[in-house]
This record gives sequence, structure tokens and C-alpha cells, in this order.
Amino acid sequence: MTVNQKVEGPSTGQRRAALRHALVAAAERAIAREGLAGLRARALAEEVGCAVGAIYNVVTDLNDLVLMANAETLGALKRALDKAAGTNKTVDGLDGAIGGLVQMALAYLDFAAANTLRWRALFDHHMPQGQQVPDWYLKQQQRLFDDVEALLVALHRQGSDRHRALLARSLFSAVHGLVVLGLEEKLQPIPLPVLRDQIRFVVTAIGRGMAPAH
Amino acid sequence: MTVNQKVEGPSTGQRRAALRHALVAAAERAIAREGLAGLRARALAEEVGCAVGAIYNVVTDLNDLVLMANAETLGALKRALDKAAGTNKTVDGLDGAIGGLVQMALAYLDFAAANTLRWRALFDHHMPQGQQVPDWYLKQQQRLFDDVEALLVALHRQGSDRHRALLARSLFSAVHGLVVLGLEEKLQPIPLPVLRDQIRFVVTAIGRGMAPAH
Repeated sequence: MTVNQKVEGPSTGQRRAALRHALVAAAERAIAREGLAGLRARALAEEVGCAVGAIYNVVTDLNDLVLMANAETLGALKRALDKAAGTNKTVDGLDGAIGGLVQMALAYLDFAAANTLRWRALFDHHMPQGQQVPDWYLKQQQRLFDDVEALLVALHRQGSDRHRALLARSLFSAVHGLVVLGLEEKLQPIPLPVLRDQIRFVVTAIGRGMAPAH
Repeated sequence: MTVNQKVEGPSTGQRRAALRHALVAAAERAIAREGLAGLRARALAEEVGCAVGAIYNVVTDLNDLVLMANAETLGALKRALDKAAGTNKTVDGLDGAIGGLVQMALAYLDFAAANTLRWRALFDHHMPQGQQVPDWYLKQQQRLFDDVEALLVALHRQGSDRHRALLARSLFSAVHGLVVLGLEEKLQPIPLPVLRDQIRFVVTAIGRGMAPAH
């Protein structure tokens, strides 16, 4: 590997980076079209115009490529949540924090509804037996919760940072449950505006119920 | 069909019912062992000692058999939730209702942890393209929410029956999100006692936040 790197000029490195970038973009499109099950090395190679074997010069395996495509989805989701968290900046205190959480929860629903297959791939993907999710991916995932944790400071002042971090993930999980069973209409047929109202009601109740006054 | 039924004695009907019962039980065991993907007509026929073709004399197709097995799982879950809802009967009013919801949420976690593959099959199963979930299955599913709706009367008196029915499903969905992402450790490694505490905290907050006093 070290020997190889020595004889590689910068243009080889650039070509490899460009190929990796093209493959990740092609994987994202394939997932958006057909979901995780639609990801095939041969079709990806055809789409970016390389040999099938060349894929494995720039990524370890298809699992690696799925993680990179999913990290892009996490980035897009993070931008949507950031934007939603910022919409309530003018309202202070408890109501502002609860309003921010509600806006983020609704933005999560909207993202899932607009990018259903990419969003599902985040949860349907499992690492091959015996392999751990790599740290760089976990860090990308943790960034999702930064804004939630910041909003929770107003609502759960008595808790430690560690407890708020845990709570941010639990709040996300609760909203995820509403979104996943709601969009799949698993429990009942539920129109999107009704689902929005339910998410608003439940997140507001959680916010009020955990606020320091109680 | 009518002609056939005329020549069938009661013992034929009984044999068919017994075969159906045996097949559903075998399907339940197969799902518990290997999940939905482990369900195969040949293996089921071998297990109950009938010809593969005989399966289709008593059920329409394997999808039908999955629904019957899943309905049994829903029945077992309903019994676990009923038992949990009854544990708080001595406490009246808001605290009693919130306590009942918390106990039911924890019972849901326990059921999912103890019967993971059967529980997952409830959500992983999808009807074949163009087919609706049959009414008898939906009714079995709706029964899950009876106790939740009863407890919500104390917490959300201002709402209509229709709104409480919706809310019962949303509360279930929120807890489901905590259970599914928690048991799969999708967001972080989380030991079961910590997950229990989080479920208790979130359900208590929802209960307090929606109570009439606020």
C-alpha cells in the first residue's frame, strides 16, 4: 500500500477521489430509485463508466459505499433539521424551545415523506456480521442531535449533559415511531395533515411535561 | 364449492380446521426461529405431516398464514398489555392513568425483547401488491388500543372519542419508536435498564403534558 502510494502521482489520487465521489452519488441515486435492495455493483460501474473491479480500488465493499451514501442522507437531513430549529429563534424560553422541537419533528416528517427510500435506507442497513459501524459514520449521526440537545437545555435544566444527550435521542426515537408507523399507515389510514397534528400534539406534550415548572 | 360442502362430512371439516390450526402453530414457530424470511411451504408441510398442496386447501396462500400467525402474536401482546394496565388499578386519577400507561409501555418493551422475531414480523409483513389487510386482522390490531384509550379518558377529557382513539395510536407509535431504535441500538449502545428509564421518562412527560390541568 505504502509502495503504491509512492509511485502514484497526485493525478492518480485525484482520479481515485473523483471515482469514489461519482460512485457515492450513483449509489445515492440507486437508493433513491429502488431502495437498498436496488444497489448492484455492475449497474453502479455502468453508470459511472468504470470496470466493476475498479469499484474495489476506491471503496472496501458495497457496504462501505452504502455507509457513504447514507452519510450524505444524514447530512441532508441535518440541514433540514437545522433550518427548522432556526425558525423559532425569536421566541424565548419554554415556548420557544417547545416550538423549535415541534418544527424539527415536522421537518423530520417532511424529509421522510419526500425522500422515503433514502430515509428508510438509514434504518434498513445493517453492518455485515461481526463488523461495527465506523466512527466517522457515528459522528455524522451524532451531529443530528446537536440542535435537539441545545433546545432541551431550556426544558430540562435539572438534567446533566449526559442525560440531555440521552433524552435528545429518545425524543428523536419517539418522533421516528410516529413518522414510520404513520407514513406506512401501519395502524390506521392517516392523512398527512392529521399526522402533522398528532406529531405537534405529542411533542408539545413531551416538552410541557418535562419542563422545570412541573 | 356448494356441491363439495354437501358431500363433506363434519369429520372432513374438523380435519381441515385441525390442519389449519397445526399450520398456523408451525408458522408461528418458524417466525419465532428465523423471522418472516424463514417461512417456507415445504418445511411447514413436513413439520405438520401433510403434502405441500394440502396447505392450499385450508389457507389461500402463505400471506394468509402469516396474517393468522401475526394475529396470534397480537393476541399474546394484548394479554401482556392488559396485565400491565391492570397493575395500577389501585391508584386513581392522573397519577394512576400515567402509571398505567408507563406500565403498558414497559410491557411492550419486554414483549418485544422476549419475542423479537415474532414482534418484528408484525411490522415487516406487507400485503401483496393491490391487496388490503383483511378486516378480521385490523379488528385484532385495534383491540390493542382499548386499554390505552380507557386510560387516556383521565388525561385528555377535553378530547372527543375519535381524538382519543387517534392519540392512543400516536402514543403507541412514540413508544414503538423508542423500543425499535433502542433494541436495535440504532442511535447508540443503550442497556435495557437505561432504555426502560427513558421510556418511563418520556411516557410520564407525555401524560403530564397532556393532562387537563395544563
